[in-house]
Amino acid sequence: MSEEEKVSSVELMNMFVGTPALFWEFKPDAVVHYAEQPSAPYSMLNQEAAAFTVRNNLISTLNMAYAVREVNPSCHIVKLGTMGEYGTPDIDIEEGWLEIEHKGRKDKFLFPRQAGSLYHTTKIQDTDMLWFYMRVWGLRVTDLMQGPVYGISTDEADMDEMLLPNFHYDEIFGTVLNRFIVQAVAGYPLTVFGKGGQTRGYLNLRDTMQCVHLALTSPAEEGELRIFNQLTETFSVTQIADRIKSVGDSRGYDVQINHMETPRVEKEDHYYNPASTGLLELGLKPHYLDNEIINGFFEIAEKYSGNINRDAIFRGVSWK
Amino acid sequence: MSEEEKVSSVELMNMFVGTPALFWEFKPDAVVHYAEQPSAPYSMLNQEAAAFTVRNNLISTLNMAYAVREVNPSCHIVKLGTMGEYGTPDIDIEEGWLEIEHKGRKDKFLFPRQAGSLYHTTKIQDTDMLWFYMRVWGLRVTDLMQGPVYGISTDEADMDEMLLPNFHYDEIFGTVLNRFIVQAVAGYPLTVFGKGGQTRGYLNLRDTMQCVHLALTSPAEEGELRIFNQLTETFSVTQIADRIKSVGDSRGYDVQINHMETPRVEKEDHYYNPASTGLLELGLKPHYLDNEIINGFFEIAEKYSGNINRDAIFRGVSWK
Repeated sequence: MSEEEKVSSVELMNMFVGTPALFWEFKPDAVVHYAEQPSAPYSMLNQEAAAFTVRNNLISTLNMAYAVREVNPSCHIVKLGTMGEYGTPDIDIEEGWLEIEHKGRKDKFLFPRQAGSLYHTTKIQDTDMLWFYMRVWGLRVTDLMQGPVYGISTDEADMDEMLLPNFHYDEIFGTVLNRFIVQAVAGYPLTVFGKGGQTRGYLNLRDTMQCVHLALTSPAEEGELRIFNQLTETFSVTQIADRIKSVGDSRGYDVQINHMETPRVEKEDHYYNPASTGLLELGLKPHYLDNEIINGFFEIAEKYSGNINRDAIFRGVSWK
Repeated sequence: MSEEEKVSSVELMNMFVGTPALFWEFKPDAVVHYAEQPSAPYSMLNQEAAAFTVRNNLISTLNMAYAVREVNPSCHIVKLGTMGEYGTPDIDIEEGWLEIEHKGRKDKFLFPRQAGSLYHTTKIQDTDMLWFYMRVWGLRVTDLMQGPVYGISTDEADMDEMLLPNFHYDEIFGTVLNRFIVQAVAGYPLTVFGKGGQTRGYLNLRDTMQCVHLALTSPAEEGELRIFNQLTETFSVTQIADRIKSVGDSRGYDVQINHMETPRVEKEDHYYNPASTGLLELGLKPHYLDNEIINGFFEIAEKYSGNINRDAIFRGVSWK
């Protein structure tokens, strides 16, 4: 397929409005909606990439809501959300909802959100869209507000490398811990943006899979938008860099940390206290980040180190 | 132009991503963004209409943000919002922002929103999009959260009927007061949905024009998203129906009120107390709804009563 044909088939997919035949054939009881453009830097590349992100993420969600309503209205929709919908507010982050008292009256609202990229803004927008259709059509929806995922090892991947998941270590699609491991192995100074006080809720790839499975096996009610904050522990970027340097140095690397000017617009130091008890109550058994996990991760990155493309590590996509 | 060509030119406009040449030619200091699909019932017609609403309303807003950033970043964007972004919460509605105290800490957020149609959801989404680009690029933005507008008379229209604005009395694009006047003149029972306790903030077309003018002549600061609630008084649907019946009957009509089952999903009786002081402080001189205004409105509707298409009055577009 030529590059031109590829672009046009992506554009065509991006234009599709309707119910995929698969829905009619399979009549699912549950659907996991991962069909979104997932990268904040990609959404900030240029106007075309921004428009693609808006159209793809919102029309895919619209198609899914309509497909479920048409084919099986009691089908459970599990949508991937992101902790980035909340941003970094100066109050505790609750799981999706907040009761607000104002001038002596009370009501319950979606937790107020303020995204740090256009991509994250589209995730606020898809939550609002599903919330609306849930209220009108009685859909059952679980929105998993996922923090940055790290890792590559799963039970299946450990048995056969053909089952390894996609692994992104580049600036556009990679998440920070994955990127730092590869940078350490490649002898590339860790790219810490600014002060490195940016704190987020992280989780192991194994726990991500557990969370989706738990959501599917204990579905939301009809007419419920259930929101879980999907993370197991919080770290600042500096804490992660220090952990990778410590393990990397013990393996004989001389890991450098480069506090570079951030290309983003974000708080480099802030309050961060997100609730995340819902998935634990459903039975999540977290794999917390420890040196054994980091060492295992180094081993895999070392095994495939010949594949590392240093040019993909940093591009400096600017938010400005 | 054939019907088919019309559809495809709309689709093409809907696909445009970029900066219109007009921006480069004119290099505006201010831009009033009215280029959205404005109808709640249209957005609920079917999936194609929903997708059109999402793509048109969000890509037009994206194009505008990029155009302003490219051509003149200090250009003042005045976007038409809607009071429908807030929905009908059980707390007082403030002008755009709310300081929230939670577990002993405080932060300021966009007022929590919960829309009653997909169209209104896209208006929440365009506010979130402009809020994001304002924070990243320092845009200056005024978002006018407009209530339903009524009226057809302006200084210009009163001088020459060629200057009359568009007037919609149909179910899809008409707003309630305009529709009721035409229904009264056409001898069509007023279509009150359910109990009629649905309360909204209304304003006269003349005041809408004043509000846009006031926003333009006192622009927002760079890096400010300024939000005004654009309404002058609140009415329930029943109150409006009663006012139209009272004036209509005094003019010799026998106006009937039909409490029909609502085709929408909405509260038919609810708390509603929106703040709206910002535009008054800028100098707004409201034209409150009185019998003289309603009588003047009847006179215009009577003059053009031969144009009324009864079939357009009610279609029963269902939210379900």
